[in-house]
Parts: sequence; structure tokens; C-alpha cells
Amino acid sequence: MIKSMSQAELFELKENLLRQYGSYKSKGLKLDMSRGKPCKEQLDISEGLLSVLKCNDDCFNENGMDCRNYGILDGIPEAKKIFADLMEVSVNEVVVGGNSSLNMMYDTIARAMIFGVDGVSEPWGKNGKITFICPVPGYDRHFSICESLGINMVTVPLNEDGPDMDMIENLVAEDESVKGMWSIPKYSNPTGITYSDEVVKRLAALKPKAKDFRIFWDNAYIIHDLNDKSDKLLNLLQEAKKYGNEDMIYMFMSTSKVSFPGAGVAAMAASTKNVEYMKKKIFSQTIGPDKLNQLRHVRYYKTADGVREYMKKHAAIIKPRFDVVLKYLSKELGGLGVADWFKPNGGYFVSVNVEKGCAKRVVSLLKDAGVTMTNAGATFPYGKDPDDRNIRIAPTYPPIEELRTAMELFCICVKLAAVEKSLEIK
Amino acid sequence: MIKSMSQAELFELKENLLRQYGSYKSKGLKLDMSRGKPCKEQLDISEGLLSVLKCNDDCFNENGMDCRNYGILDGIPEAKKIFADLMEVSVNEVVVGGNSSLNMMYDTIARAMIFGVDGVSEPWGKNGKITFICPVPGYDRHFSICESLGINMVTVPLNEDGPDMDMIENLVAEDESVKGMWSIPKYSNPTGITYSDEVVKRLAALKPKAKDFRIFWDNAYIIHDLNDKSDKLLNLLQEAKKYGNEDMIYMFMSTSKVSFPGAGVAAMAASTKNVEYMKKKIFSQTIGPDKLNQLRHVRYYKTADGVREYMKKHAAIIKPRFDVVLKYLSKELGGLGVADWFKPNGGYFVSVNVEKGCAKRVVSLLKDAGVTMTNAGATFPYGKDPDDRNIRIAPTYPPIEELRTAMELFCICVKLAAVEKSLEIK
Repeated sequence: MIKSMSQAELFELKENLLRQYGSYKSKGLKLDMSRGKPCKEQLDISEGLLSVLKCNDDCFNENGMDCRNYGILDGIPEAKKIFADLMEVSVNEVVVGGNSSLNMMYDTIARAMIFGVDGVSEPWGKNGKITFICPVPGYDRHFSICESLGINMVTVPLNEDGPDMDMIENLVAEDESVKGMWSIPKYSNPTGITYSDEVVKRLAALKPKAKDFRIFWDNAYIIHDLNDKSDKLLNLLQEAKKYGNEDMIYMFMSTSKVSFPGAGVAAMAASTKNVEYMKKKIFSQTIGPDKLNQLRHVRYYKTADGVREYMKKHAAIIKPRFDVVLKYLSKELGGLGVADWFKPNGGYFVSVNVEKGCAKRVVSLLKDAGVTMTNAGATFPYGKDPDDRNIRIAPTYPPIEELRTAMELFCICVKLAAVEKSLEIK
Repeated sequence: MIKSMSQAELFELKENLLRQYGSYKSKGLKLDMSRGKPCKEQLDISEGLLSVLKCNDDCFNENGMDCRNYGILDGIPEAKKIFADLMEVSVNEVVVGGNSSLNMMYDTIARAMIFGVDGVSEPWGKNGKITFICPVPGYDRHFSICESLGINMVTVPLNEDGPDMDMIENLVAEDESVKGMWSIPKYSNPTGITYSDEVVKRLAALKPKAKDFRIFWDNAYIIHDLNDKSDKLLNLLQEAKKYGNEDMIYMFMSTSKVSFPGAGVAAMAASTKNVEYMKKKIFSQTIGPDKLNQLRHVRYYKTADGVREYMKKHAAIIKPRFDVVLKYLSKELGGLGVADWFKPNGGYFVSVNVEKGCAKRVVSLLKDAGVTMTNAGATFPYGKDPDDRNIRIAPTYPPIEELRTAMELFCICVKLAAVEKSLEIK
């Protein structure tokens, strides 16, 4: 335990760590653990998707529709079927879009700003103040949407079973400005936790003061298991129906980390009432999504089970990378009392909480030695981690050898920052 | 001339026309001249686009970027280059998007509603009233955007050299609520006219009272010539620079009618200041456009000249269809004083003005006989043609034999409606 060391011991350890750090720094590394990007090997497995539509005759869907031409706002039926199966909802609760689920989330909020959530409630843009509940640590791009749209963000802690439900229940019951909540319910970005059944049930049963309160259920890692034993997540839309709360839910997913991040297919699920309303609005927004890309995905994966099966190939590639990260954390930092982390069963990240006030220092030490991490603070609204503790590790992109080097250095930096902090205090 | 006929002659003609109409009606036709959709032969010529990216190694762009993965908000450089060349602007004045230029237009206006046009001006959504100038007849989907967003529409006549510039100059000079103007400057939808140099110059030199006034320059038919002798359109963005008005212009185009309507690539052009501002906002809207589809188009067409050359294949397919439409109009309606039309050098439509108060009747007669036309009125805001005169003919989609039949019937219906109207008046 570093905390119980004497000043002399700390100085000695610091010297030792600085020496190790220096030797890595002199190597002129150029490593990147910053973004949750699939690696090249992962992209390569989808090669067949590129040429699954080969000729003109391939471009007609099951209804004989020419997917090259205009038409259809909410996705081709066979794509809706696969996404409905994956999201465990019915086909008429699904809208299949373009290549970005983030875009579907933004558009949903932008529509709420301009029109209200259902054409009946007041446009959010005409309210003085709109507040979103943000479980933290969370996903920076969610927070960017709120920041961009001038939406106030109130944070609640994300625990190992999901967000703090007492706080959420109070917030939505008391404050009519609370109109939305972000969530990544399975293999959460960044902590990797999955919401417990109790949390999902309490979310489904919320009694918000604002009738236009909406939960943004970003199920980005819905089928992104690392292990045979995967986390089970209760279906929020189905649960919400038990309380007549089905209009409160917007669910999102995409194939960005199934097929191609830059050229996948995104979808959302919501109550049929919400879907019907959305389709009316989408008519004025676009000529419709890229149907050929939807058809490519349908032909390639065939069914929801086909997609699920495919995810095992991804797991086989990225699980060793997660193992490296977790092995180094455990071997180098375990029992030192300078960091804690959660061992995820899926998703794209390992989230490490270092000593209070040390995250920025760790990331900056790493940067100076050529290792790029997600900015410290990025997992909090406005990029400000009040405790300066959380660091997001994205293991999937770098080659495994680089990852080893990066993690060796990461652990040195975490210890070094903790020693510096201890010396500061003494 | 039907108008100069006696009542007896009119009755006789009516009987005759009704007999002809009846014989078509009994055929149980099912023809569609309603939408500006490319026909199957046109889509078939782009077959090679489907498989131009065959394997993993094909997916890297000229900078070595893996287009399958995340990254880039404004388009891959080589796609920007082609669109810049086509739109006659510089690369840093271009943003390449997804598959829908309509979506880029909507998003541009939605951003203006939420943020103002440049982050400095007041959000349009906070103004009491926003007005767009709509040259008529025009494109229904433009008007739908305004209708959806609650934007007031004021119409100005579209003449053979462009919209009535005296009216536009007065409107923008006097009314600060006038924040936008729609335009399809080349081969306008539906009339097929192209704005004259003088019109473009006067637009470029506008002195709007509203500093956040913007011209939406939907150059949907920018390279969609039917004849060797094509219309020449002055470049509005370049002209506007002469007056320091470059921030006033948003230009749009897409490959929807070059490659695939459902799976093309859209782009916009604007001043570098506008582009930089947009990019900041787009960051919170999406993870970025489908780069693989951009790359597909780049590899297939190679250069702007490659795209232009390709358009000749489209012209070869659709020009005979336009010829059929124009031949029947001329042969059956020429000199009768019951309709006028413009012979376009490009685009997707022939716009026919029938006798005042007859358009709905003509479309309804056709519908009863199994021929679907664009709704009468669709070319005006709220679907209301005050003179009930304009009918949009879309010749590209139906097979040429069907088009002949449809046009025979169309001409009968135009005459019949005119005779009915004459009898009504007498």
C-alpha cells in the first residue's frame, strides 16, 4: 500500500518509477488507447459484406422493391425484422436509419427541441431550461449533444448495478425541467457494468413530473459480449409497458461495432405511437436511409442469430486485448490501493479509477511518453471529472504487443502519480 | 382554339373526348408519372458501383485512412475534391455527407432554428416569425421542410429566367423575418428553366435586412443535361464573394440521380466560415458520414469529368422519354390555347400549365383512368396552387411505351377539362 509508506520509501519508489518511466519515454513510443475503435482484424472479418451485393438483380428486397431507388423512410422490412429481433421488440416499434445511432439520438433530441417530443408537448427549445440526467462516468458524445444544444446536465453516480436510482427517482419527481436521461445499459461506456433487473424495473416505473421525460437507452453494446457467460439485460421497453410508460423510452443500437464503424446501420426502437410520430417528422428530414447498405447487412447476416453468431468472431479478437489490460492492472496495481476497476463481460472499455486528483497527471505522463489516452475528464459532462479520478482505457484498437507496452507504462504512471500525490500531502 | 368554340362545338368535342377517355379507362391502366425517379435502365448502368470495393485492401483512401473505421466529419478528401470540382468551389468550401441532400438542407435549417445560422445570430426558433421566399412552381419537399418547421412561406413567380428579382429584392430589403429563400437554379423542379446570369448576379448582390438571410441553392440538376447544348449557370458562391455576401449562400447537390437515389452521396458548399462553423456543430450530430460509400463513388467515377461523362449515359436513356412527352404536348395541345409548357435542356420534369382551375380536374381524371400524376398543387406551398393550373410531369420512370399511353391520355384529359371549364363559363 503506497499510502502507508514513509516519506523515504516514497522518495525511493519515485526515483525507481521515474527511472522506469524514463526508459519507456526514451523509446519514442506512438501508441493510442484513446478511442473505442475496432481494430483492423475486426474490420477484416466483414470483408464479405463489401461484395454481397454484386449485380443489379441483387438489389431487390423481399417485397421486390428496388433498393437502389427512392422510397421507404423507416427501413426495409427485412432490416427492421433483424433489428426488432436484436432489440427484442416488434417490427412496428423499429426505425432503421443511416450509419450513425448517435445521429438518431441527436435528431430525436433536436426534434424535441423544435417540436416537443410528440407534437403535443411544448418544444424543449421554448422551455427556459432543459435538464438531462447523466450517469457518470459516461459517454463523451452523449454529453457533447447536450452541451451543443444548451441542455443542462445533472450527474448521478453509475454503480456496479446501474445508476443511483434513488437520486433519479427524486430528480424526475421533483424537477419538471428534467426531460431526459442518458444510459448505456449493457457493458456501459466506460465502466462495462450492466444495469440490474431492479434498476431496469425502477426506470420502467418512473413517475416523472415532466410528461415529456424520455430515457435515451443507448444499447450500443447490446450483443458485444466478451465471454460465453454474458450479462443479461431486462428489456426496458417491455418493462415500461407494464406501467403504461412505453412512450418514455427511446432505444438505440447500431452495427458500427458489428460490421463497419464508418459504414454500418443504426436503428432505434420506441412505442408504436412514438414511431408513427417520428416517421411523420422524418419525412421532412430526408429522402430516406441508404437502403442498399441495409440490404447488404441483411444479406450478409441473414438473421439476428446470424449477427449474434458473428459477434463471437469479434470476441475472439478483442478478448485477448482485454485480458492484457486486466492482467497488467491486476499484476501491477492490485492491492496497492492506488486504483480500482471493473472487469467487464463485454463492451469496449476498461474504466480505471486512480487516486483522487491523479487522472490528469497520469494521462499527461502517458502523453509525454507517446501514449495517447482518452482525455482525463472526458467521461464527465463538460470534460470535468470533479474528482479527477477516472481514466478510460480502450483496448480494442492497438495491436496486442503495443497494448502490453502501453499497459506497462500505464501502470508505472498510475503509481508515479500516486507517489507524487502522497509526497504532496506529507 | 377551344376558347373560341361555340357551345355546340364544345359539346361535340366533349362527347368525342369522353369517348376517347372511356376507351383508355376501360384498359385498366396502371401508370405512374408522379415522381422524379430514375428508371431501372438508369440504375442498371451503375452496376459496377456495387462491387467497386471488393476486398479489405480496397477500403483505404488516398491518405491511407481506413474508410471502414470511425473518423472524418466532412467527407474523405478525394470525395471533397470531386464535389468541389462539380460545384466549382474550393475543397475547403465543401462538406460531403450521407445519401440525402434534402437531409443536409433540413439539418442546415434545423441548426439555424436551434442555434442561429452562425452561432452569433439569434436562433430562428426564438424569433416569432421566420419567412422563406419560395419561387413557384417549386419542389414540394422544400415546402414540406418549411411546413414542418413552422416557417412562413411567401411565393414569388418563377419566370423563364429565374424568380422575380424585383419582388425578392423588395422582400429581403423590407422584411427582417425573411431569413431564407429556396432555389433550384438549374433545370428547376418542375419548370426546367435555368436562372439567367442577371438573376444570379442580383441574388449575389442582395442587401437583406436580416443579416442571417440565407439562399438555399439546391443544385440538384447541376450536371443533369439532356442535350449536348446545356444551360450555363453562373456560380452564385463566386458571384457573392464580389459583394462580401459569400456567407449568404448554401449550395447543395447529390449523386441521387447520378448513381443511386437510395444510396448516393450528397454534398454542400458554403463559405469557409460557414463550413468551419458547420463542422463544429456536425461533431455533436453524428459520428460522420458513410465513408465507404463515398470511396465507392470516388473509385467508380474517379474525377468530376468522370461524373460528367457518365451523365451522358443517363441522358441517352431519358431524353427519348422527354421527347415523347414534348412531342405529345406539341402534337395534341399545341396551338389549342389550353396549356403551355417549357422545353427543358435538362432536369427531371416537364411542367405544364393548363387552363386556370383545371389542374386538379386533369389529375383526377387521370387517376380515375389509372395514371398517377404528382398531386395538382404539390408544386406550391401547402399543396395549394392558387390558380389550380400547374401539373408536373415526371417522364423518367415509366417505360417509354407506358409513357406514350399516359401522354395520349394526359392530352385528352387536358382538353376535356378545358372543354368542361369553357362550358361551365358559357
